[in-house]
Amino acid sequence: MNRHTVVFEPSGKKGDVQEGATLLEAAHELGDDIESVCGGKGVCGKCSVKIDEGLLASHGIEWSGQVLSPPADEEAELLSRRGLSSEYRLACQARVLGDVAVFVPEASRRSRQLIRKSTIERTIPVRPAIRKYYLELSPPTLSDVTADYERLITELRRSSGLEEVIIDYAVLKDLSHILRSADWKVTLTVWKGREIVRVEPGYVDGSYGLAVDIGTTTVAGYLCDLQTGEVLATDGMLNPQMAYGEDVISRISHTMKEPDGLAGLNRAIVDGIGELVVSITGQLDLTPGDISEMTVVGNTAMHHIFLNLDPVCLAKSPFAPTVSGSLDVKARELGLTLEQSTNVHVLPVEAGFVGADNVGVLIAEEPYNQEEMVLIIDIGTNGELVMGSRDRLLCASCATGPAFEGATIEFGMRAAPGAIERVRIDRESLEVQFKVIGSDEWNTVSSSVKAKGICGSGVIEAVAEMVKAGIIEKGGRFSRKLASSRLITAEDGPAFIIAWANETALGQDITVSIEDVRAVQLAKGAMYAGARILMDRLGITGLDKIILAGAFGSYVSKEHALAIGLFPQCAPEKVYSVGNAAGEGARLALVSVDKRREAEQIARKVEYVELTVEPRFHEYFIEALSFPVPSVLSKP
Amino acid sequence: MNRHTVVFEPSGKKGDVQEGATLLEAAHELGDDIESVCGGKGVCGKCSVKIDEGLLASHGIEWSGQVLSPPADEEAELLSRRGLSSEYRLACQARVLGDVAVFVPEASRRSRQLIRKSTIERTIPVRPAIRKYYLELSPPTLSDVTADYERLITELRRSSGLEEVIIDYAVLKDLSHILRSADWKVTLTVWKGREIVRVEPGYVDGSYGLAVDIGTTTVAGYLCDLQTGEVLATDGMLNPQMAYGEDVISRISHTMKEPDGLAGLNRAIVDGIGELVVSITGQLDLTPGDISEMTVVGNTAMHHIFLNLDPVCLAKSPFAPTVSGSLDVKARELGLTLEQSTNVHVLPVEAGFVGADNVGVLIAEEPYNQEEMVLIIDIGTNGELVMGSRDRLLCASCATGPAFEGATIEFGMRAAPGAIERVRIDRESLEVQFKVIGSDEWNTVSSSVKAKGICGSGVIEAVAEMVKAGIIEKGGRFSRKLASSRLITAEDGPAFIIAWANETALGQDITVSIEDVRAVQLAKGAMYAGARILMDRLGITGLDKIILAGAFGSYVSKEHALAIGLFPQCAPEKVYSVGNAAGEGARLALVSVDKRREAEQIARKVEYVELTVEPRFHEYFIEALSFPVPSVLSKP
Repeated sequence: MNRHTVVFEPSGKKGDVQEGATLLEAAHELGDDIESVCGGKGVCGKCSVKIDEGLLASHGIEWSGQVLSPPADEEAELLSRRGLSSEYRLACQARVLGDVAVFVPEASRRSRQLIRKSTIERTIPVRPAIRKYYLELSPPTLSDVTADYERLITELRRSSGLEEVIIDYAVLKDLSHILRSADWKVTLTVWKGREIVRVEPGYVDGSYGLAVDIGTTTVAGYLCDLQTGEVLATDGMLNPQMAYGEDVISRISHTMKEPDGLAGLNRAIVDGIGELVVSITGQLDLTPGDISEMTVVGNTAMHHIFLNLDPVCLAKSPFAPTVSGSLDVKARELGLTLEQSTNVHVLPVEAGFVGADNVGVLIAEEPYNQEEMVLIIDIGTNGELVMGSRDRLLCASCATGPAFEGATIEFGMRAAPGAIERVRIDRESLEVQFKVIGSDEWNTVSSSVKAKGICGSGVIEAVAEMVKAGIIEKGGRFSRKLASSRLITAEDGPAFIIAWANETALGQDITVSIEDVRAVQLAKGAMYAGARILMDRLGITGLDKIILAGAFGSYVSKEHALAIGLFPQCAPEKVYSVGNAAGEGARLALVSVDKRREAEQIARKVEYVELTVEPRFHEYFIEALSFPVPSVLSKP
Repeated sequence: MNRHTVVFEPSGKKGDVQEGATLLEAAHELGDDIESVCGGKGVCGKCSVKIDEGLLASHGIEWSGQVLSPPADEEAELLSRRGLSSEYRLACQARVLGDVAVFVPEASRRSRQLIRKSTIERTIPVRPAIRKYYLELSPPTLSDVTADYERLITELRRSSGLEEVIIDYAVLKDLSHILRSADWKVTLTVWKGREIVRVEPGYVDGSYGLAVDIGTTTVAGYLCDLQTGEVLATDGMLNPQMAYGEDVISRISHTMKEPDGLAGLNRAIVDGIGELVVSITGQLDLTPGDISEMTVVGNTAMHHIFLNLDPVCLAKSPFAPTVSGSLDVKARELGLTLEQSTNVHVLPVEAGFVGADNVGVLIAEEPYNQEEMVLIIDIGTNGELVMGSRDRLLCASCATGPAFEGATIEFGMRAAPGAIERVRIDRESLEVQFKVIGSDEWNTVSSSVKAKGICGSGVIEAVAEMVKAGIIEKGGRFSRKLASSRLITAEDGPAFIIAWANETALGQDITVSIEDVRAVQLAKGAMYAGARILMDRLGITGLDKIILAGAFGSYVSKEHALAIGLFPQCAPEKVYSVGNAAGEGARLALVSVDKRREAEQIARKVEYVELTVEPRFHEYFIEALSFPVPSVLSKP
């Protein structure tokens, strides 16, 4: 038989194939990775490729209409239904009759790339854990009474080459009905090439996954297209466990005090995620059943409670978690209202205080792939620190207390509408300008959104501005040299009025007191001392880059944070806010099994440093309580 | 360092080892397989070995008391607690100081042998799927905060060499509590060397498994010691599905007619097995939680219903089952009241009509390892046939109808007390002697157990005796030449009185009618024709051996069965009744993973023959309706 040369662009793969081979067969033979869900049955249309005169000419081939077998009616119909011109063909249907050059569009490529822009730019191959396969089976007859499951698996092996596949028992239970009602044409969802986790009637396009970041306060969901890696919808909700306590410690206490405490907290988050799934899939007219896989990150306590693991060990020295490696658990085992067999991948944790959320941050920011010496700070109730570079990574958890979340501060509140988030103080007049969440304007008496309190980033700015204006001295005391009607003496000592009563929704002045300043000092002292310990361990004296992750990190003004000495000095242009990097990590793990492997490796590689047992921690902490001279402060 | 020669008996393994090595280390080095559950901690006592002067002398070693390190108090105490003399040592504690010879008792050997006597004798290595490991972990400290699970798995890897072990999620949930309450000393149950399915506090000896044969009528359970392979207790119960119909077809109909029909039938058998587990473990003062694994056999319908798989496909042509391969399913997935993580191994099925019970029969009887041409008959509602030898095996299912179970026979009943099971008819006088189940005597009017009906084996004997006495002619008609008060003409035609009214509990005569004879003819015709078809397929004209399995096979008189032509002719001494071989197969699969592999292979290898589509089936069937000349019939 004749052989003909086939070239695939843009890969440039080229070689001779047998006359009569399909372009899909040619692609497999020559190593070009054209997508195919239906395995060459001309059903899915995923393998559409383009053949045009220009491309042929550039390869010195004259267009004769004879290089490929002509399209059958079904093929032409499918292509036109997909809105493709007559220059397109299904690679699985077009047979090679002469030398030909073929263009494979991005959408027809099996290995897609996800381009991410963060503090570094990189592309990640989209390789989700699940993959769909469309199969057409021959029904059983009296002379072929092979059982349904063995019939399915034989055809799957034949068409996909997957040798070691099993089926989840929950899927097996409905198999015989589905096969018969679907006339033996079904779409399988296979997890990690080794387990059938779903069988759907007919040809089913599209596969979706959900990445979830369980924060102590907020739960965020990202609905992703598992074929492209794109985020299709995002949604968030207050963590329903808030009813049991605002912070991690009060929730762990709840599990210790109440007989069914853990069960209640677990139910709350599982049901909460169930609601999130309904609302986020609803945004795209999908149903919870359309979610093929889910990934989860969260701090260690959220991780344990979600998995129904007793978190008490996290609250007692030596704070060893129950499990640190990643887990794959079926939705039904967790009581989640997804399809029973849906896999839930929970990212690994690093240590008792450094959770799967931090691992999410790591795989999103990849400090382990960088030459630069990086400090990543994720501030919540605890401040989680990761420091290092390609060679070595350390992590630690600082007991900053909840000051940065607005708690323990007299007028502190969560970052919600009405919270003062920006503060400027005039150095001469000590007059104050502030901005509240929910309003675009700096404070005016007529503003429709009145101030209700100060959130974490507002506290940082207020204290930094007070330091800058000389209201607070180096040691943290209020200056006695200044005079202003805003400087008052309250019951517990001096305080500074940020918002007058008539600018607030409270009917009283919102102040920053000496106690509040102390809380900030303790928090920033712990954070700074933690960073210094890690620097000592690494034997470095300076940082190339600081990454602020998490909600707080997104809102805080890096200049003010540097000004109060929240972390070691670094050029302000090398301080980045990356938003919810933990959630981004969950999303990356959702669309890339390579990222899961990376997470597993880095969670094992990063060295946990227990700060409280470090001899120099206390010394650095005391040193860091004072305020450095403000360096870079911008005007509003 | 010095090296010394160590010899292990009875294996004869011999070699030099380093001075100071323990006997257990020496055994591992030299390839002798001494048991050890605690991994050499001197806790389990499984590695007890004997060193005596005689043995030493036979190897030319003089007893000096210096060949081994002396026992510590704990060792001496443990050995005496186990009732062992001072000649015994723990191999894991005794260190080699000179040349030594050691006797390893059967109980201290890892690979035990199970000796079986059936139609052939063979030994089977005891290799259960589960194995226990005792571990002592070092608790976490501030300088070693490894997570509980990773701590456990690291120690398990270190001490057992198991590299790829995971933990069942249900076990993980309680892990942190158990480890702490047990002071970090636990016994793990590991399934197939790859999954931790149980963690128990402290050192736990003994492991048990349950083999279950789900028959349409009866459920049988065998509680086995997984270390020795022995059956410790047996128990049986009526299948609770009997309330939904006595035979397979009526139960399948129930699932089709009732909306929750399958759920009800499934619940009935699952709950029934739950009761069986309680009663059988109770016999040994164990609890259901002590069952480490369970194996299950049953016909295809029982198999499907137990697994909650819709059995409708088994009742509709082409009768393809949902799954034929073996399955491993967690007890919790099946709703069984065992420990949640307990594995339930369900043996494979051969075809729509030839179930896991038949696979059990095959691995118990091993026709595939024999030169002889064997026919195995398992008679229930259907007669299941397997024919062949080492080279090739065929199986088939004959629609015999329920005549052999006593159903469809006018006075038919199950093999229960009061059922006539033996019948003799005097050729001259046509007088009848019979025996009922529950009585040791041949019929007397004063018997305390009155006849209530005739069971399957009684029907066979009655018909065979009637043929022998000339009451029934070759074609199945009643003879018109004989005269006897027992020969009557009932509404539907002639009948023969087996028991007079005053010998029965019914107050009426128990008869065998022309209709009953027809039912037996149809049943035996189908069975015989099936066997003939298989003989044709194999190209053989005779059989070397016939094995009757199942309850019917145990009760039926082989001479009478041969006399009516229930199966092809064979020397009566080569016809064996093996009792519940299906249950025996379930037990073998329970104690031997090799047997599971064998089951999987043979279920795939045995060729299913669909008799109804065989052209000659009808011809053989008609031919087999008639009764052959009786050959071997013994007197009572």
